[in-house]
Amino acid sequence: MTSSPPAAFFKTIGIIGVGLIGGSLGLAFKQAGLTHRVLGFGRSEQNLQVALKQGQIDAIVDLASLTQESDCIIICVPVAQIKDILRALLPDLRTDTLIMDVGSTKMDVIAGAQGILGQRLRQFIPCHPIAGGAQHGAIAARRDLFANKQIILCPLEDHRSEDLARITACWEQVGAQVFSMPAKEHDQIFAAVSHLPHLLSYALMLQIANASDADKKFRHAGAGFRDFTRIAGSSPEMWKDIALANREAILLELEAYLQEVERLKQAIHDQDADTLYELLSRASQSRNQWQG
Amino acid sequence: MTSSPPAAFFKTIGIIGVGLIGGSLGLAFKQAGLTHRVLGFGRSEQNLQVALKQGQIDAIVDLASLTQESDCIIICVPVAQIKDILRALLPDLRTDTLIMDVGSTKMDVIAGAQGILGQRLRQFIPCHPIAGGAQHGAIAARRDLFANKQIILCPLEDHRSEDLARITACWEQVGAQVFSMPAKEHDQIFAAVSHLPHLLSYALMLQIANASDADKKFRHAGAGFRDFTRIAGSSPEMWKDIALANREAILLELEAYLQEVERLKQAIHDQDADTLYELLSRASQSRNQWQG
Repeated sequence: MTSSPPAAFFKTIGIIGVGLIGGSLGLAFKQAGLTHRVLGFGRSEQNLQVALKQGQIDAIVDLASLTQESDCIIICVPVAQIKDILRALLPDLRTDTLIMDVGSTKMDVIAGAQGILGQRLRQFIPCHPIAGGAQHGAIAARRDLFANKQIILCPLEDHRSEDLARITACWEQVGAQVFSMPAKEHDQIFAAVSHLPHLLSYALMLQIANASDADKKFRHAGAGFRDFTRIAGSSPEMWKDIALANREAILLELEAYLQEVERLKQAIHDQDADTLYELLSRASQSRNQWQG
Repeated sequence: MTSSPPAAFFKTIGIIGVGLIGGSLGLAFKQAGLTHRVLGFGRSEQNLQVALKQGQIDAIVDLASLTQESDCIIICVPVAQIKDILRALLPDLRTDTLIMDVGSTKMDVIAGAQGILGQRLRQFIPCHPIAGGAQHGAIAARRDLFANKQIILCPLEDHRSEDLARITACWEQVGAQVFSMPAKEHDQIFAAVSHLPHLLSYALMLQIANASDADKKFRHAGAGFRDFTRIAGSSPEMWKDIALANREAILLELEAYLQEVERLKQAIHDQDADTLYELLSRASQSRNQWQG
């Protein structure tokens, strides 16, 4: 704890959508001394009350008040709703306020923001914290959610370097590591390592749930199944949005994935033990070498 | 600790293949007082030395001595090697010795055992502990590996009920819960909830490893990816055998899985938000209701 506020200090922060990410941001930013006052806005009164009670936010306000009073606004809603939020807050937006989002896709979010903010796009800094989990809602928020996590930040030509530095400093002060990359690259990478596995995990749950012997299968499923399907417990609303927002990259990655599945299937079908062993060895070596 | 040995007591137990499962069995059986003497046989001298040093086994012996001296033999080798082991130990096999395996497939193991043991099939009790992990070798063995885990036992017409009861008691005394079911049903269930997810997880590792931007993808992959691919770190030798041994059931389950993937893909392709939301909701509800 220092007596002077850190460079990234914001007198008032407004969080729109106080779920796992939004609530954790409130806790983490206050703990890091990045702000003394967090305003919350959301659609569920019950959830906002949890956030208030747990100190994630200091007050529940309407969107206009949040927009007028906040020096930094963090939009933590499913990606398909970001445009509507930006449209709604624009009339009250001060010129000195910075906005961040935390969405899992970036191309569509930036395109939406550009259409609505126009010349004021520089105020909007697209971010994606690689943090989350199958739990959701304020009830799941944790002050250390961002510790040792990655934040992807997508800088745009419109941005001022001091604003990027300030937002970078915020994330670093809650323990995260910030990477900058173009939105297109972001969307390709996360289509492969995040969006696709989510869909594949959802698909396995559907398959078992639709089986005539689903009860037996669920009864005997073990630890491998548990890990593989953990992400299938994630919010269907959030992931429906992500799948549609990053549609092209996801469909491309899915095609590449199905080719790998086809290779494994062919080797099993042909009882080609050597090829199968080679493929599985390469996969398991990659996994065991991965420092994740 | 009781002063009289439990009903399932075996004076000498022989473990063939002292890896994660074999080594853990040695520790767990001794800790539960199910035996005082564990003999080990395996192909890697270095691994056997680890097992000996850690008290998983009490002596390293050749296969003939292990077979002659053991009251219970537990075969813990990849499923494709079980036949060879049975063939090799048959000349020295006493009529009062029970044999178990711990293989992840049961139809092929039983068919192999039947061909080799013939009239003596009753001595062979097919088991499958739903325990394991991505680590392998004696170094990964743990005395509590079977605590609160399921054991699937596939009774055959040849078995004597007292032998089944004795083997059941063994597993229960190391903390496991024993389920009996026909081998065909076992293989169908585990094709869906274990074998298929392993292959799907291997396939994602292959896809990322083969991508031109593999380094970047691995660098930014997060917790969801880590869980989804944990089982891809498993032994390629073991899983090559399982995939081939349970080939038909796995190919059937894979077809069913690909249909679910196709449904998700179609909804994404068509930008059909309602259908997509419905599918993801059903999957996530199933996952969150599952008591695994």
